[in-house]
Amino acid sequence: MKKILLRLAKQAQEASRVLANLSTEKKNDALERMADGLVARRDKILTANAKDIRTARAAKLSDALIGRLYLDEKRLEAMSRSLKEIAQLKDPIGQVIRQWDRPNGLKIRKVRVPIGVILIIYESRPNVTSDCAGLCLKSGNSVILRGGSEAVHSNRAIASVLGSALEQVSIPKEAVSFVPTTDRKAVDLLLKMDSDINLVIPRGGEGLIREVSKKSRIPVIKHYKGVCHIYVDEEADLGIAERVIYNAKVQRPEVCNAAEALLVHKSVAAAFLPKAAQRLIDAGVELRCSAEALKILRQDKRLKKNPRVKKAVSGDWGKEFLDLILAVRVVDDLESAVEHISRFGSQHSDAIITRNRKAAETFTQRVDSSAVFVNTTTRFNDGGEFGMGAEMGISTDKIHARGPMGLEELTSYKYIVVGQGQVRE
Amino acid sequence: MKKILLRLAKQAQEASRVLANLSTEKKNDALERMADGLVARRDKILTANAKDIRTARAAKLSDALIGRLYLDEKRLEAMSRSLKEIAQLKDPIGQVIRQWDRPNGLKIRKVRVPIGVILIIYESRPNVTSDCAGLCLKSGNSVILRGGSEAVHSNRAIASVLGSALEQVSIPKEAVSFVPTTDRKAVDLLLKMDSDINLVIPRGGEGLIREVSKKSRIPVIKHYKGVCHIYVDEEADLGIAERVIYNAKVQRPEVCNAAEALLVHKSVAAAFLPKAAQRLIDAGVELRCSAEALKILRQDKRLKKNPRVKKAVSGDWGKEFLDLILAVRVVDDLESAVEHISRFGSQHSDAIITRNRKAAETFTQRVDSSAVFVNTTTRFNDGGEFGMGAEMGISTDKIHARGPMGLEELTSYKYIVVGQGQVRE
Repeated sequence: MKKILLRLAKQAQEASRVLANLSTEKKNDALERMADGLVARRDKILTANAKDIRTARAAKLSDALIGRLYLDEKRLEAMSRSLKEIAQLKDPIGQVIRQWDRPNGLKIRKVRVPIGVILIIYESRPNVTSDCAGLCLKSGNSVILRGGSEAVHSNRAIASVLGSALEQVSIPKEAVSFVPTTDRKAVDLLLKMDSDINLVIPRGGEGLIREVSKKSRIPVIKHYKGVCHIYVDEEADLGIAERVIYNAKVQRPEVCNAAEALLVHKSVAAAFLPKAAQRLIDAGVELRCSAEALKILRQDKRLKKNPRVKKAVSGDWGKEFLDLILAVRVVDDLESAVEHISRFGSQHSDAIITRNRKAAETFTQRVDSSAVFVNTTTRFNDGGEFGMGAEMGISTDKIHARGPMGLEELTSYKYIVVGQGQVRE
Repeated sequence: MKKILLRLAKQAQEASRVLANLSTEKKNDALERMADGLVARRDKILTANAKDIRTARAAKLSDALIGRLYLDEKRLEAMSRSLKEIAQLKDPIGQVIRQWDRPNGLKIRKVRVPIGVILIIYESRPNVTSDCAGLCLKSGNSVILRGGSEAVHSNRAIASVLGSALEQVSIPKEAVSFVPTTDRKAVDLLLKMDSDINLVIPRGGEGLIREVSKKSRIPVIKHYKGVCHIYVDEEADLGIAERVIYNAKVQRPEVCNAAEALLVHKSVAAAFLPKAAQRLIDAGVELRCSAEALKILRQDKRLKKNPRVKKAVSGDWGKEFLDLILAVRVVDDLESAVEHISRFGSQHSDAIITRNRKAAETFTQRVDSSAVFVNTTTRFNDGGEFGMGAEMGISTDKIHARGPMGLEELTSYKYIVVGQGQVRE
């Protein structure tokens, strides 16, 4: 197996040298053909997907997991549309990031170049296969895809369709490759191939990410958990606060930028909590409350005996529920809110609701998260919402890329220095 | 030992939260006091250094190594001056990298923030201790310094002087800490502390860097070897070519951006090689030549029997000599030069000498090195020469920072998003 994987990595590296020198037109042409291929060869892909679904049912995987795994014509069309959208995005490669002249006459340009070969390790959703392939191609990188074993037939079929599309425009099909085995050892082997693979992006559960970071000799950019907080300040507009926490918790509770905890300043807790809580509870949310929050909610006659109002246990602080569950705590002041977030947060996305400019400044300065929000929802931490177009995911690392990873974040740079015979004294 | 190191890392992380919120004035004040401290407490530092030198002599370390280890008043003053220069540099923290508005009214700012805690692993030169401490402080990062065991007394004394200077301005002295043991296991333990250390920068030999990359769970930015090439094109100005190769090889052969190989287009080899070779040989350079290069040089009556003209062995291609030795090869064309560099180079610094604009473009496009030079020397791949001020070193990685690492390259960023109650639909 080692030999096969080594060849796969080497071929991906060779393909990346071709990709680095392709014109934007050629890359876009390939993306269009990839998009068309997904629709034209839907029978092949859907047959493969049906096989994965049967296996998943036999293995009694959860309905939620099977739902994520499932493909139909509509989903394939959406995947195809995503690739066409990537073709529309601006090509980052060759872009001059900065240029300047030196007193000795040297002209320096800092120019965007591809990273090389990117290994992406992900779970279940087969659309990730085409999204990642498209983003890597447009940014001039070869990609090695390692999807979850439950989606192996679907992913293999998708990767093969994408590879054929590349061949139609004479791009080496090794620019998009799919790890041909579901053996777990394959990942361990790939993570050691630091001379041919330049970057690893693991997307998935905590266990997967810890494992990859521990074993990799290749740089890793983690897409880790989101324990996002909404802090309602003493000078908050309570209408905005209610709307924001509802949106951040309820709209899509299963995603990483959904809120997991609500912190409320003690001076507005009595005015804010019962009404906001009622609305959340009506949407099916369970509240896990600190002693003070519980006291306030139990004083409300409608909430007094509501089974969805519970006492928090210590493990609830800092927990990524990814579900209709919210930890609720009353805090003494802004300082305590910042402390709580720094202790229990995951440096992903956190928000303050306040009309006080100084409080907003302190919060955005002190909270060390990839995105910090004022008077709006953490759900906006997203490449599309930021205007980057499609994204690879949300990086929770501080090295190379932080927050949404779009095309630019999939690039490196080099310096081009032009002289007229200057030497160093 | 694990307990001590864990506390050291935790305290560095706590200190980094203080540093992230310091004003530029305060940081500069600290840098000035650190600079003054090095001079004021020179007796303490020189006494410690004398101890290291005695140990090094007893262990029969090479004169070159002892030379790098040695400190005197003049060197201390240079270290002090470097810190004062860092105080003069623009503070990168808080800088708005980009800002834009979204159609829904959200205002997004991408703002520069510190990385957190940086572990620097380096060898012998004690000036690295104060340079790195200064750069990290100015960029708002805590630093954990792990110098070579041969310089332990010098480094400890320097770090203690720097720590006292921090305390004078009420900055926690843990912002600059020095690993208190020379036990090699200390590094292994630190490389696992990924919750408190955010980045590792190893500077030194190949073995050290491989070891660190292999063991670290923390992101690593490698400062690896420089196998730099100068390619003399068929349309080169041979005067410039001679001046550049002489400078790139002779001026400071022991550094990473010095040239290690000369590639000459076959159509200018006979005109160029003998004269250039003579000048290099007069400066003490040994030439390790390909068959064709050797043939040309042996046809020159002055060089015919010169013992410094030798036949290259295969290991000479891609070797980092760091000495007055140069590999010389005649190539068929630009394409072969690019192929040679891609096979044997280290993606550090490479140059083309040509008057042909198209050739220059092809070379700078195709050669994938941190800096690619046209008609000038690879020795210019340097933070100071690029106008960045002091530098941490030259990154040979493609992730996060490539080429010279100045203050900006020691930062991360976060997004600050300000809304007026917007939620996601």
